[in-house]
Amino acid sequence: MQNTYFTPGPAELYPTFQQHLQVAMDEQIGSISHRSQRFRDIYKFTDEQLRILLSIPATHGIFFMGSASEVWERMLLNCVEHESFHLVNGSFSQKFYDYAVALHKHTHVLEKPFGEGFDAADIQVPEYAEVVCLAQNETSSGVQMKTSEIHKLKRKYPKKLFCVDMVSSAPYPDLDFGIIDSAFFSVQKAFGMPAGLGVWIASEACLAKAEQLQKSDTLTIGAHHTLPTLWKQYKTFETPATPNALFIYLLGKIAEDFNRIGIETIRKQTEEKARTIYKFLDSSDTYQSFVKQERHRSQTVVVATTQKPAAEVIAAAKMKHMIVGSGYGKFKESQIRIANFPATSAEQISALIEQLKQ
Amino acid sequence: MQNTYFTPGPAELYPTFQQHLQVAMDEQIGSISHRSQRFRDIYKFTDEQLRILLSIPATHGIFFMGSASEVWERMLLNCVEHESFHLVNGSFSQKFYDYAVALHKHTHVLEKPFGEGFDAADIQVPEYAEVVCLAQNETSSGVQMKTSEIHKLKRKYPKKLFCVDMVSSAPYPDLDFGIIDSAFFSVQKAFGMPAGLGVWIASEACLAKAEQLQKSDTLTIGAHHTLPTLWKQYKTFETPATPNALFIYLLGKIAEDFNRIGIETIRKQTEEKARTIYKFLDSSDTYQSFVKQERHRSQTVVVATTQKPAAEVIAAAKMKHMIVGSGYGKFKESQIRIANFPATSAEQISALIEQLKQ
Repeated sequence: MQNTYFTPGPAELYPTFQQHLQVAMDEQIGSISHRSQRFRDIYKFTDEQLRILLSIPATHGIFFMGSASEVWERMLLNCVEHESFHLVNGSFSQKFYDYAVALHKHTHVLEKPFGEGFDAADIQVPEYAEVVCLAQNETSSGVQMKTSEIHKLKRKYPKKLFCVDMVSSAPYPDLDFGIIDSAFFSVQKAFGMPAGLGVWIASEACLAKAEQLQKSDTLTIGAHHTLPTLWKQYKTFETPATPNALFIYLLGKIAEDFNRIGIETIRKQTEEKARTIYKFLDSSDTYQSFVKQERHRSQTVVVATTQKPAAEVIAAAKMKHMIVGSGYGKFKESQIRIANFPATSAEQISALIEQLKQ
Repeated sequence: MQNTYFTPGPAELYPTFQQHLQVAMDEQIGSISHRSQRFRDIYKFTDEQLRILLSIPATHGIFFMGSASEVWERMLLNCVEHESFHLVNGSFSQKFYDYAVALHKHTHVLEKPFGEGFDAADIQVPEYAEVVCLAQNETSSGVQMKTSEIHKLKRKYPKKLFCVDMVSSAPYPDLDFGIIDSAFFSVQKAFGMPAGLGVWIASEACLAKAEQLQKSDTLTIGAHHTLPTLWKQYKTFETPATPNALFIYLLGKIAEDFNRIGIETIRKQTEEKARTIYKFLDSSDTYQSFVKQERHRSQTVVVATTQKPAAEVIAAAKMKHMIVGSGYGKFKESQIRIANFPATSAEQISALIEQLKQ
């Protein structure tokens, strides 16, 4: 019997994934040249579907990386000359910060404990920070920052480049790319694909910054996947290196499926399922929502503190072929994580809740 | 009707690929956690199979990247403090060099024209060069450097780190990892997989160099996929970022298939098929081998100059469902490229030759 994965990524594959994969195999997508019209058509299609899904304007390019982690490095190399600013409240926002330190950037950080979230009013962006790095959704702690708060902050600091981690929430957040310069996500989360592809959205302002930094004698923007090279190739829907064409194809097909349902419906369904889970946690004696403030509760990765040992809860669910995520890092023993991605239905979420009740 | 891809990568998928993919789907490899024992077992299995196949000793680690192009950057960042030395005789060895320039390394280069190859006797490695970068197989021009010559050169300069591009030839070259420090390849070439995974083999000497450079205040070894981080995670068969677990699984299964046949047999079959192609080219009035020196003729990517327009030759073969590669860059009009990977049989090569004769 097949398991249902409620893990926060890699996660349950989207129900249409296998049929798209079969078509891709029949059409020999794994063998086509990345310099062929067939590949350019695939890139163009995926680009179009993501633009519709996430309302991405023509001012922004869409690029494919090996992973979202790679995007951290590319963003910092290409868009930060000296100083970056990081909102850190979990392991992944921390890692974005750690990358900046490793790249010898002058880093500023505003920290909150695991489980707490940011609002625009909390935040003073340092004067010389060039890029503001923040997580719309902190996968490790189940905390979100509302897009309205992100937009408010950006409007307060319109000249700073904003780079938004939506790795484990896209396409849920309704980011306004009219003002947000860059964002990124992975396909093994809410898009219901196997891992192996990161998606980087970056604006012309990011490109201009990269082109300016590229002229420096002292600083390097890197050699691989630099934004100017990515953008140059992107103009004809090609990539600098041989890309994961198969996954780019599959991402386009799943984004098309999402568009058929409609992004508003997907967002509503996500919120309804999240409400069901949080309602259960709030009424349970055994489980509590780790995130206390309702506005900071992630809609896509729910973290619950459990009175029973987490390992027991996870093992019992596994017996029923439901795979639940463990708590992150030091919360491994005391928390579970439940992904709420489009691949799992309201019925599956209800079945999981019934299981957790036992 | 399905095409047969004789293109030098992406290429024909290995005949067992689809069945392995089906098993992977049935086992839900696309959903498993990269921090699970299941994933560690997969990494360990692929590691073991590649070690058997390529005779990789315990002194070397095996790491997974987004592409082979990424390895160029990682090698240069992690192992070159000041100076690198490049043997350049085609577009890909040129790109390795270009990456070093972009990273502001002090670069030395020995160049040969497209279609010509290197022997150890040609080469003086500059005194302060830390890493020698060379292509065992130049995919763009169909030129190989014999492993015996690579080994001879390394023995002459035992203290230099050697990094060998075997992107479009592995597992064919019998590199001696007892003396060769690093090598890399892509899975969409001779391993007959879709693109999306690069493999980096690096020795403890490379790691020691990276650890030394990491202490520098002025230089950065990068933030993503640094060798010390990769190695640390590798000790427990994990990866720093979420990896392409599905492709790592498939690579292990195909490497296992190769090991069942035996690497000696695969090498012999490769040489026999290459001999058939070159024999045809040498006796043809319409086609000639671009590479004149027999010892420099690639065994895995054959480049032929054609008297007929290349586009016509390619179109005619396509009518018969045989996809042949075009010449690289400025040779697009006058050359064709024929991949000779394990995925295509002696019979398929013969059929292609019959087609080219017409």
